[in-house]
Amino acid sequence: MDPVKVIEIKKSVFADNDEDAARLRKELKDNGVYLLNLMSSPGSGKTTTLIRTINLIKDRLRVAVMEADIDSDVDARKIKDATGIESIQLHTGGMCHLDAEMTRQGLGNLPMGEVDLVILENVGNLVCPAEFDTGAVCNAMILSVPEGDDKPLKYPLMFSVCDLVLINKTDVMPYFDFDMDRCREYIRMRNPRAMVIPVCAKTGEGIDAFADWLCTRVAEWKK
Amino acid sequence: MDPVKVIEIKKSVFADNDEDAARLRKELKDNGVYLLNLMSSPGSGKTTTLIRTINLIKDRLRVAVMEADIDSDVDARKIKDATGIESIQLHTGGMCHLDAEMTRQGLGNLPMGEVDLVILENVGNLVCPAEFDTGAVCNAMILSVPEGDDKPLKYPLMFSVCDLVLINKTDVMPYFDFDMDRCREYIRMRNPRAMVIPVCAKTGEGIDAFADWLCTRVAEWKK
Repeated sequence: MDPVKVIEIKKSVFADNDEDAARLRKELKDNGVYLLNLMSSPGSGKTTTLIRTINLIKDRLRVAVMEADIDSDVDARKIKDATGIESIQLHTGGMCHLDAEMTRQGLGNLPMGEVDLVILENVGNLVCPAEFDTGAVCNAMILSVPEGDDKPLKYPLMFSVCDLVLINKTDVMPYFDFDMDRCREYIRMRNPRAMVIPVCAKTGEGIDAFADWLCTRVAEWKK
Repeated sequence: MDPVKVIEIKKSVFADNDEDAARLRKELKDNGVYLLNLMSSPGSGKTTTLIRTINLIKDRLRVAVMEADIDSDVDARKIKDATGIESIQLHTGGMCHLDAEMTRQGLGNLPMGEVDLVILENVGNLVCPAEFDTGAVCNAMILSVPEGDDKPLKYPLMFSVCDLVLINKTDVMPYFDFDMDRCREYIRMRNPRAMVIPVCAKTGEGIDAFADWLCTRVAEWKK
């Protein structure tokens, strides 16, 4: 596989992350760059979903990806090999989340004038990443069918900060006790405005709906 | 369902968690109580695995469970209803992990003289709980097949602090790209001493091996 750029992220020095995140969002707006912060549990299919989605939209938008992980660069390499787009790996040095300054360190390694959409694949964790505004224009998350439909009850903050919930691995619905209607209801309890899109990254089902949603949002942001 | 006791855990005041954890472990030893700290991603099947296991061992050992979650009491109620044993819910108030003092707050709500084994179901998270010694005699974790066999590469600390890795949901192996041998090899890279037991909490397969392992460990601890 091709080598990818690996960035060792340093701990932030800013005391007020919310203020810094608002500043970063303003910089992104000025540069016409849409930043999507994608969160989920470990193994819910973030990377596979991104590969499918990027291959659908890369002719319409200039896309780059930042893969945050505590260790390894498997995800950044997978994205690069499977889509051909710019993909860098951020190492968090054991930290369980990214904040705005850490995100900015990653963005500094991308050709900002040449991208429309940057997708940040956050550390696989349903708790801490929800507490830190990364400066992203939009928070999205993936819940996969094998994790169960009760997750909005147990991880309320994550569901309340996300504008979009992708429900992934719908192909294995027959083998798990997952009730889609109940899950939608739990998500609505946490965030009535959240958009819910069932997808299957493995077969590609539903990915076009996510791709269209994303392209519309990016076009609005760039106006 | 029966009501369960819900404990709102307060933030710890101790500066040195490692020291406090060692002290708690000594107290447990003096009381002949074995504390197992069970960790995993959200939705890997901790509660279902515990129900199966407890129903196998509850005639041999006096067992109690502490369910840690950010919100909800579904898990503590499930355990109580399905096994009849003492089960309490710990609410972490948004915190992503438990440390020794928080664990002690939970233990204070159990009849310590009347139990041999306390199982702490930690917050679903592969990152932060690995960083804090809870005072448990043993750390164990569950990795479920749908999460993928590459998790030891991405969450190294979690795998290195666990003496036991249960690989759950083996019944869905045919529907996922999960290589058991590769997974064992990755786990060995992180922790050559870790015991690996494949289980299926849904069908009960492998649970007897876990139950025997646990009973042996508890008996040794109580000597």
